[in-house]
Amino acid sequence: MSKGLVVALSGGVGGAKLALGLSRVLPPEELLVVANTGDDFEHLGLSISPDIDTLTYALAGLDNPETGWGRRDETWSFMASIGALGGADWFRLGDRDLATHVERTRRLRDSQTLSQVTADFCRRLGIGARVLPMTDDRVRTRVRSDDGWIDFQDYFVRQQCRPVVQALDFEGAATARPQPDVMAALRGGGLRAVVICPSNPFISIEPILAVPGLRAAIAGAGAPVVAVSPIIGGRAVKGPTAKMMQELGLEASAAAVARRYGDLLAGYVVDPVDAAGVAGLACAVTPAPTLMTTLADKEALARVVLAAADALRQRS
Amino acid sequence: MSKGLVVALSGGVGGAKLALGLSRVLPPEELLVVANTGDDFEHLGLSISPDIDTLTYALAGLDNPETGWGRRDETWSFMASIGALGGADWFRLGDRDLATHVERTRRLRDSQTLSQVTADFCRRLGIGARVLPMTDDRVRTRVRSDDGWIDFQDYFVRQQCRPVVQALDFEGAATARPQPDVMAALRGGGLRAVVICPSNPFISIEPILAVPGLRAAIAGAGAPVVAVSPIIGGRAVKGPTAKMMQELGLEASAAAVARRYGDLLAGYVVDPVDAAGVAGLACAVTPAPTLMTTLADKEALARVVLAAADALRQRS
Repeated sequence: MSKGLVVALSGGVGGAKLALGLSRVLPPEELLVVANTGDDFEHLGLSISPDIDTLTYALAGLDNPETGWGRRDETWSFMASIGALGGADWFRLGDRDLATHVERTRRLRDSQTLSQVTADFCRRLGIGARVLPMTDDRVRTRVRSDDGWIDFQDYFVRQQCRPVVQALDFEGAATARPQPDVMAALRGGGLRAVVICPSNPFISIEPILAVPGLRAAIAGAGAPVVAVSPIIGGRAVKGPTAKMMQELGLEASAAAVARRYGDLLAGYVVDPVDAAGVAGLACAVTPAPTLMTTLADKEALARVVLAAADALRQRS
Repeated sequence: MSKGLVVALSGGVGGAKLALGLSRVLPPEELLVVANTGDDFEHLGLSISPDIDTLTYALAGLDNPETGWGRRDETWSFMASIGALGGADWFRLGDRDLATHVERTRRLRDSQTLSQVTADFCRRLGIGARVLPMTDDRVRTRVRSDDGWIDFQDYFVRQQCRPVVQALDFEGAATARPQPDVMAALRGGGLRAVVICPSNPFISIEPILAVPGLRAAIAGAGAPVVAVSPIIGGRAVKGPTAKMMQELGLEASAAAVARRYGDLLAGYVVDPVDAAGVAGLACAVTPAPTLMTTLADKEALARVVLAAADALRQRS
């Protein structure tokens, strides 16, 4: 018997690990992954959606286990050639990965929505769970540093997160419409849980919450919202989360992430090393190993998150 | 001392062989190759210029000696991936080759002309000679067969030249403007020769001649026009030239190609096996080996063509 739909909010690498875990322990029709598209950008004339791709590659078993992004068994002939022609080569696009961007760009130009393209790619790659962008409209995360406002991928990839982050902006978010199927799922009742994956709160989850209507729909969905901390012992597993928190004047801690999500959270799964640090939070805390290295780790954490949500539902 | 500029009209594979030969025996500033763009098409959202690419790859030493098109040391990961996403995979695009199409498409969308893109690619690839498209405007060769009018690459690649050709049309040619530097070269005086490379007359050379002003400028350039026959002993070295001639009601012969070019030709280089067959032509005939297998073959034929042109100039 179905326990209801699980809606997971996710960025790229870290979030995709838990999304994969969830997809392994849930029937396909009980998982909907909402992907951040604030990292999306246009590069070499191609429409690139890094978080959607990391998620779909992970769920399809096509992900590159060494990098965490891109595809396994990748080749790099395109990159080796583009530079010689004067093309930009700071964003690494593998030859297999490129097929995704070229075909997506063709379809978007042909008036398909990003949701339609993503859904069809998932179907063709054999992914049972749904993956949908937070919106089909254009939202672009921008970073303010000493040099003024720069595009997210300029900060993230070209400058390798070196600039000190003073502020973030999600350009276009204020007028973006939430993805309709996501809203329907949140409003449809019978939801089992909303899971906030262990992604960077500032650049992966907050762009999703910034789309008008989404935060309220999540809060009002009648299901527990359970987050997994992306911070373990004051450090991010991958990426600039901890550095960014310090630069934004926050403590790099699991507790500070939870405070950032505020009263949205009913439950919070943190690594045992952080259990003491989150003792004062209003939400229910579940200490559990959150470092996901193996597939078994991902499945185990998914089960912990679902159990935490189920316990909260029964209590309410 | 400069003997003057040589302007060569060329399609893809066969023409590129002679263009390479010419580039090896001429100083770079004395060769201008005018490329057919009637084969150009949009595929997967990319702007593809097959003849320009075959020429530039050949001149840069990046060509694939096995296929005659595409790049050497090529990999095919993109092709292996695009089909799984529902993308069209009937036109083979290698991973290195793809860099050319992606960067060209980006620049064309950024309002550069095809001439500018091609000139910059040549410079970056170390090509001394100039390669220019016949026009920066859109011309598209179309083929009429039993199924009506179809796009050229549909006929040529997807259907592998199987349809019987009833007629050809160069869509857009009537309003296309000839490439300005090509016109300036033809009108500038001091030309040594105009060389019609051993390309398919119907689909490689006639699209060039169909651009308003180009045929007249070639005829009035004051330099001998010398063609090399693409037919040897009734057969085409590569491609559908002979089949197409028969379907269009012409004899598949070196003589029929020369008659097609008509009074444009001052000189005609044919293989010795065809010398008897072209005996009645009005233009000067030079029998010489025209099958180009080695680099030495290409250079030798280039020298024969230039000598034929120089002899015609001295006579006039």
